[in-house]
Amino acid sequence: MKLLRVGNPGAETPALLDEDGTLRDLSGIVADIDGELLADPAALARIREAAPTLPVLDAEGRRIGPPLGRIGKVVCIGLNYHDHARETGAEIPAEPIVFFKAADTVVGPNDTVLIPRKSVKTDWEVELAIVIGRTARYLESDEEALAHVAGYAVSNDVSEREFQIERGGTWDKGKNCETFNPLGPWLVTADEVPDPQALGLKLWVNGELKQDGTTAEQIFPVAEVVRYVSQFMTLYPGDIINTGTPAGVAMGQPEPKPYLRAGDVVELEIEGLGRQRQELKDA
Amino acid sequence: MKLLRVGNPGAETPALLDEDGTLRDLSGIVADIDGELLADPAALARIREAAPTLPVLDAEGRRIGPPLGRIGKVVCIGLNYHDHARETGAEIPAEPIVFFKAADTVVGPNDTVLIPRKSVKTDWEVELAIVIGRTARYLESDEEALAHVAGYAVSNDVSEREFQIERGGTWDKGKNCETFNPLGPWLVTADEVPDPQALGLKLWVNGELKQDGTTAEQIFPVAEVVRYVSQFMTLYPGDIINTGTPAGVAMGQPEPKPYLRAGDVVELEIEGLGRQRQELKDA
Repeated sequence: MKLLRVGNPGAETPALLDEDGTLRDLSGIVADIDGELLADPAALARIREAAPTLPVLDAEGRRIGPPLGRIGKVVCIGLNYHDHARETGAEIPAEPIVFFKAADTVVGPNDTVLIPRKSVKTDWEVELAIVIGRTARYLESDEEALAHVAGYAVSNDVSEREFQIERGGTWDKGKNCETFNPLGPWLVTADEVPDPQALGLKLWVNGELKQDGTTAEQIFPVAEVVRYVSQFMTLYPGDIINTGTPAGVAMGQPEPKPYLRAGDVVELEIEGLGRQRQELKDA
Repeated sequence: MKLLRVGNPGAETPALLDEDGTLRDLSGIVADIDGELLADPAALARIREAAPTLPVLDAEGRRIGPPLGRIGKVVCIGLNYHDHARETGAEIPAEPIVFFKAADTVVGPNDTVLIPRKSVKTDWEVELAIVIGRTARYLESDEEALAHVAGYAVSNDVSEREFQIERGGTWDKGKNCETFNPLGPWLVTADEVPDPQALGLKLWVNGELKQDGTTAEQIFPVAEVVRYVSQFMTLYPGDIINTGTPAGVAMGQPEPKPYLRAGDVVELEIEGLGRQRQELKDA
């Protein structure tokens, strides 16, 4: 299923995009699309069954929100693509690099992204986001890990490289500016993504293709990431893991590096997971 | 005011500890102690006025929860005490080091702390926690910064040093294990903490004093921390900032370093902000 949330920030209506491309209003049968729903197989089955008879939702001109409400934490994996590690001059990590974005950085897939004040190095990162559906502690196998994944979504792990790398301390300083995590348009349930390691990812800036990768290039694949992270922290339904970006970010390009400016338009998509479009503005 | 939450996890009753040491039940006048309440001066005034007539709450034998519900994000400042930076052999940071704990790591002040599986370096850190009361973006002065602080609390920034430092990537990997952030017992409103830079902090392990510091030793004081962090991310009511720990952690001591084991008891207190006690158990 393709689940989404349509409406103004904080007042989104849960919806389903059915196989004919028709939007169905889920508000009569579920309160929201959130961790509680994802952890409840009976509720998901109810949606699946009721879908053909649910009211059609007219989304014309309405905002699409993030496809998940009440997000817990957003765990991020750094340098998780062979080609991206090469472009940044970094060594291939021996084990996954973990950092965080705050859930309050998450915005809708087509919302404005704000360039922080005094920023000169705001960069893009198309990423496959994992949405967790079951509480995960100390998982032991890949199979077990995949059984804890509710679905997937497109994520833009927007990053300010000076704040991230040149201002001391951890990467978090450049990853948590307001609006820095567009997510969606849909949460695509895991049953519709038979192989998460065979997805093309693309990102354009002002119409020019900048990133053109595949999750086959991931150093640590989805199952390994979930299993690994669960050794260090407990993952809860409604948590998200951004799994890293392929080559083609501004930081990896020759000088003068084409960092984002107000007025730029970023578009990104992942095979089967939909497409985002953000306009950049000054904060 | 000293605000707290009493009861089972997820079902705490909001309460006030009045000047006579009597617990008053706030559930008749506020839904919870959370960011929404802290952002509402009228609601806080209502509590203050009603306090003497509110029902007494019998807390005998009842758990104390974290003093804040629906915590947004937990921003942490690293190496923020001159004496702690020296003991770890780190240079004095030129600007604050920022990392994150997930809000789901927060537990009550006397709840069990779990030693993660395969952990051999679980460590303690008594810290002054700032509780944010107003949305803070790009603050310009210390005065403005302090006006965004709702109050303060005792925080234990439990840390797994191998996960934090020896496993690649950022510190977050060793800061986010389950139960790694005991908070409370109280949220003490800022009006009762006239000088946050003059608070003694102490921590004992199995009755032996390990940390005995003062916030006067902070490299970046509370106002500067809030102002600084607001340049990189937006702070919302109900967010927390752990402001760093003074000298005396296990990592700073001679070999064999006395890292925590199941059965150990950690107690910590900050002048005027109350006392915590945690027993360690294996996860």
